[in-house]
Amino acid sequence: MMRAMVTRAGKLVVGEIPKPMPLPATVLIRVHGAAVNRADLLQKRGLYPPPPGASEILGLECSGTVEATFGNSSRFRVGDRVMALLRGGGYAEYALAEEGCVMPVPTTISLSEAAVIPEVWLTAYQLIVRVAKLQHGENIMIHAGASGVGLAASQIAKDLLGAHHIVTSCGSDSKCDASVRVGRASASVNYRSLKGSLSDAVIGAMKGERPNVLLDCIGGSVWVENLKMLDMDGRWILFGTMGGTKPPEGINLGHLLSKRVAVITSTLRNRSAEYQADLVRSFSNEVLPKLAAGKLHITIDSIYDLRDAEEAHRHVEQNENIGKVLLAGFESLEPNRQSDETLQRL
Amino acid sequence: MMRAMVTRAGKLVVGEIPKPMPLPATVLIRVHGAAVNRADLLQKRGLYPPPPGASEILGLECSGTVEATFGNSSRFRVGDRVMALLRGGGYAEYALAEEGCVMPVPTTISLSEAAVIPEVWLTAYQLIVRVAKLQHGENIMIHAGASGVGLAASQIAKDLLGAHHIVTSCGSDSKCDASVRVGRASASVNYRSLKGSLSDAVIGAMKGERPNVLLDCIGGSVWVENLKMLDMDGRWILFGTMGGTKPPEGINLGHLLSKRVAVITSTLRNRSAEYQADLVRSFSNEVLPKLAAGKLHITIDSIYDLRDAEEAHRHVEQNENIGKVLLAGFESLEPNRQSDETLQRL
Repeated sequence: MMRAMVTRAGKLVVGEIPKPMPLPATVLIRVHGAAVNRADLLQKRGLYPPPPGASEILGLECSGTVEATFGNSSRFRVGDRVMALLRGGGYAEYALAEEGCVMPVPTTISLSEAAVIPEVWLTAYQLIVRVAKLQHGENIMIHAGASGVGLAASQIAKDLLGAHHIVTSCGSDSKCDASVRVGRASASVNYRSLKGSLSDAVIGAMKGERPNVLLDCIGGSVWVENLKMLDMDGRWILFGTMGGTKPPEGINLGHLLSKRVAVITSTLRNRSAEYQADLVRSFSNEVLPKLAAGKLHITIDSIYDLRDAEEAHRHVEQNENIGKVLLAGFESLEPNRQSDETLQRL
Repeated sequence: MMRAMVTRAGKLVVGEIPKPMPLPATVLIRVHGAAVNRADLLQKRGLYPPPPGASEILGLECSGTVEATFGNSSRFRVGDRVMALLRGGGYAEYALAEEGCVMPVPTTISLSEAAVIPEVWLTAYQLIVRVAKLQHGENIMIHAGASGVGLAASQIAKDLLGAHHIVTSCGSDSKCDASVRVGRASASVNYRSLKGSLSDAVIGAMKGERPNVLLDCIGGSVWVENLKMLDMDGRWILFGTMGGTKPPEGINLGHLLSKRVAVITSTLRNRSAEYQADLVRSFSNEVLPKLAAGKLHITIDSIYDLRDAEEAHRHVEQNENIGKVLLAGFESLEPNRQSDETLQRL
């Protein structure tokens, strides 16, 4: 048995449930920390069901030490410091990960820092390198520049791919500051205090040039401004709909055609194990050494005790965080006996 | 001076205008035939203005013989049989083409057949090979399967790329028949006589599989059915909006995300000279030899005398054609003196 945060009546409470069942080529991790992702908030509300076969416990990433490995040959040994991209199950004492989605934690990175790496850094890397195929010298515009993905994406665009103008949008001056200072964006626009249109502000910040690539987790509410600012042959990478699924003004396909726009939607969690393992491999070669050397920066906004997961969720829900919110303290969890009923199902 | 079809009050009339001015690395072609494209119909109505610097005369492709070459070194000699992708100017006795967009006509192909090759075959090749990047064994669904582009696209998908299921939609049984017989589609659905939904019919024709790639010149009116039929990670190539620019039901971005769809829009005419020349080069290597050998089939629906261009346009406007409509008879044009006024501007 192990303790885990389980959902009861839409709230997270401490429960006690069986340890995950081992499968071939998996690694059981004794969890040190798990980060909060926006997908967790949706899943808790029943809006983002885990893919078939995945744990119903929240948590798309974790760090910790290897407790056991299953299968004939493993790259990992008991006690190794690791971090992993999970399909679910991170908010618990133990989490089971596909071996291909587990990475060793470099000695220069703490287990707390490691817990906030997999989900956002792999997402940012995937979107910019594999989906958008950003080229050296191209311009990129990133919405939510001080989010975990935003800070990772702007650094990858700058350091790994040599983007030219990297302009982000954020909802406060302190976020804009973090996006430029930590994320190394060329400029960041505060969309709340903006006079004039977002597209004009972005084109202005790009000194008259336009984005070739747009990283968009907002969707509906920024549709028209996105289309206005994009350059010819722009790649518009949509990976979230925080601003709604329906552009209020509707969509005119002729406007997309006139700029030869490609609207490419992408997710990570429900991709195949092979895809994820391949992504982890490339990321480990191209990005992880730079994180280990301190050339790319990991941003932890705050650390919450796992039993305060609800509070951590509220913090993210209110968009107060700059970078990632970490959950830790898995060792000292006291199970909430009232949740036993719920746990029977899990 | 030369004779050309010019637009006057929205109608095509014979006019007399100066021969095109030579530019470096261009070829002046004495036109044998020029094909009708849907873009011509739009341009005549003022809805598709020629790109900057292009002739205002209609006509995006032609065949003929080389009258002169301009620039230091040309791959062509006076008298050579050629066909060319044009940015405009095909409905005339002489047309000027960028040298990179001119192809020699193989001896097994007549000049009439050659006139209907460049625009649709390069468009189909571009969309399937470069934009959609269709892979061996993937499924493709093609709207307007008996159009010029449709017939070329299904043959390229089958013969060049080894697509698995190739299913098209057409508006009549005779078109469906042509799409299967000439276009070598696996099956073709008559959307007018269909009982049930188009998506169900396409998935049925694919024996329960779904399209990985969708070639869509329709847009708005088929948006929902397209999204329903597409497979995960589907590439939806939008290159026309014959069914309107606004999906009647609106668009839900969440639905795109749930299938990780990429909506990629594309055009050919306003691409750079370098892009077009590079496309022509690849096409000449990969496709032209198969056309010359009779392995891929050119479909001429009908041949009109150039002076009857209006009638040819009506034929296309009413979607009566299977394959391409050719305009010929450039030698016997009698200028219409009433059009002089218009011509001053050209």
